[in-house]
This record gives sequence, structure tokens and C-alpha cells, in this order.
Amino acid sequence: MPRTDARGGPQTRARISDVATQLFLERGFDDVTVAEVAREAGVSSVTVFKHFPRKEDLLLDRTDDAVEVLRSAVRDGATDVLTSLQQATVRLLDEEHALSGIKDGSVPFYRTVAASPALIARSREIASELQQTLAEELAPVFEGDAPLLAAFFIAGYTTVLVETARRMTAGDAPADVSADHRARLDRLFDSLRNGVG
Amino acid sequence: MPRTDARGGPQTRARISDVATQLFLERGFDDVTVAEVAREAGVSSVTVFKHFPRKEDLLLDRTDDAVEVLRSAVRDGATDVLTSLQQATVRLLDEEHALSGIKDGSVPFYRTVAASPALIARSREIASELQQTLAEELAPVFEGDAPLLAAFFIAGYTTVLVETARRMTAGDAPADVSADHRARLDRLFDSLRNGVG
Repeated sequence: MPRTDARGGPQTRARISDVATQLFLERGFDDVTVAEVAREAGVSSVTVFKHFPRKEDLLLDRTDDAVEVLRSAVRDGATDVLTSLQQATVRLLDEEHALSGIKDGSVPFYRTVAASPALIARSREIASELQQTLAEELAPVFEGDAPLLAAFFIAGYTTVLVETARRMTAGDAPADVSADHRARLDRLFDSLRNGVG
Repeated sequence: MPRTDARGGPQTRARISDVATQLFLERGFDDVTVAEVAREAGVSSVTVFKHFPRKEDLLLDRTDDAVEVLRSAVRDGATDVLTSLQQATVRLLDEEHALSGIKDGSVPFYRTVAASPALIARSREIASELQQTLAEELAPVFEGDAPLLAAFFIAGYTTVLVETARRMTAGDAPADVSADHRARLDRLFDSLRNGVG
């Protein structure tokens, strides 16, 4: 009999998050308890809390992925950091990665977040954490003002993602939303390089 | 006998906020109830809620002032919006306005906010509201991408304010903090005009 994933393992983490996401999208974030998530996932509430100390992160579970994208862009980029960040965000779009917001089936996710003040607040907090991470990564390699570039990038990229979410939710054709997302990325990086004036 | 300010008036609002601020700075935000604020201010809790639907806004009570600064900069500026915004932020610094964060006695305020997740979350929400307001004001007058400029400006100005708060709290000489704040404003607007690269 194959050994099942220990309760501390990545498979358990993924199952908990998948089960939680399904429940939240069906019934709304505030109406589902952590105890229900645990029961549905076949684990204890303690195990849920061990993997997800904050209930919000059961749904907003891509922060580690986002950190990894930013770190790789700064550390592994063969070129200047702005070009690396641009390539990374274009790649997310091309792959229809969940972090790009273009992924098929994202609309129930957007609706669930928009309906929950706790999830909106946690989204802002995550953006702030990513900005801090990016500033720290940039500091040793970027000649200019690293905290300022990190602030501009995160705030600017957020406007791209918010507009993508708005258009997806409004039912616009994915190809149109994707093209607009690409044009906005171009404008974002042009503004980072040459100013918004 | 002079008529006192009606309970709906601006003097009552200011008194409630002053009393609340004093209590929060002395004892921390979470340990003071709205009922206590009402009692100390000599009004009912209903009156407090009428003026301040959110407890956080009893301390973070400068949002209307900030909106007014942004609106005036965009609407009344005799020059391009970037110059108007730059002049407005330099003026706040020169006047040691509370919004600049340089005001004498701001440190207890910073400590109180930093100790309260609710106040930090509300600060982020206010920044988001100000960004939205600025984007709407800019849309009819700014030739470029108004939401992007609003995002860059609010995020960039926030880095200036956060660094000022950090240095004030660390006990740095106010003249040094002020000079650094001015240099950061220069860099912010230079980056908005010419890029951060």
C-alpha cells in the first residue's frame, strides 16, 4: 500500500486549499468556517491552521508563488531588472497563469473576494508584503531608489490586475481582456522607464 | 448665553476626535471603547457613530483634508498636474502639516497605528480611496494614464511618509528627517516625470 502524504505535506496543503476554495466560491467566504473546511478535507482544524494560520490564505494561496516570481525575476534575470520584471509579467499572461488574473474560471474567485472585506483587506496586506520583498531583493542590484521602484511596480501592476478582473467580471471576451492586459503592461513598463508625464 | 454647537456640528466632531485621539494615544486603540470616547466627550455613542461610522476614523481623521489637498492640486493648479502635486506636497512639508508626518508630536500617533492591525488595515484602505479619488480627478485633465499616475503617486508618496514615520520614531533629528523628506519628494517627482530606471 503506498504511503499517503503525511499531514504536514504539500499534498495535504493543496487538498485543504482546493476544498476551501470550492466551499468559499459556492457559499461565500464569511459563511464557511474553518471547521467545515477541515471536515470536508478530512483533517483536523489544527492541521488546517498549521498550513494556513489565516483563514483568508485558504483562498489567497498564491503569495508564495508571487514571491518566487519576483525573486526569480530579480535574481535570475539575464538583463536589467525592469526588463526581467516585464518578461516575468508577460510570461504569466502568456501562460494564463492564475497570478495574471486571465485564467479561465477566475470570475467566481473575483466575486468572492469583492464580497468579503476580510479578503480585500488581506489582498492589500499581501500587496504590501510583496512590495517589501521586492524592495529587499532590488536593493543590492538596482542603482536607483529600490523602495520607490518596488512601490511603483506593485501599485502599477495592481492597476493592471484590477482592470483585468473588472473586465472579466463584466463578461468581456477573454481575447480582448488579454490584449488590453498586454497593452497595459507595455504602458506600465514604459512609464517605469520613461515617466508617466 | 451663547448657543453651543449643535451635536451635529463640526465643533462636536472635532471634540470627539480630539478626546478619542488622546485616549487612544494613552492606552492603545483596541483598549478604548467607543462608549468611553462618548462618555469623555459628553455625547452619546449614537452621536459618535454619526460622525465616525468607523472607530478607526476617530484617529485617522484627516482623510477629508487629504482629499481636499488632492482635489485642489488638480483643479486649481496653474500648471501641469505633476507640478501642482509637487507644490502641494512641498507645502505640507513646509507647513509641518499633520499630513506630512513631520508635525511635532507625531511619534505617539505612529506607535499607536503600528500597534493596531485594524488601524494599519484602515490606513491601507484610505490610501486606496485616495488613489481612486485622484484617478477620477486626473481623468479629465491628464493626457496619459490617469489610474497609473494615481497609483504611482499614492504608492510613492506613501514610501516618503513611511520613511519619515520610521525616522521620527527612531528619534532622528527633525531637521534631518525634514531634509530627507524633501529629497525624497524630489526623487519621487523626478521618477514620475522621467522614470525610475
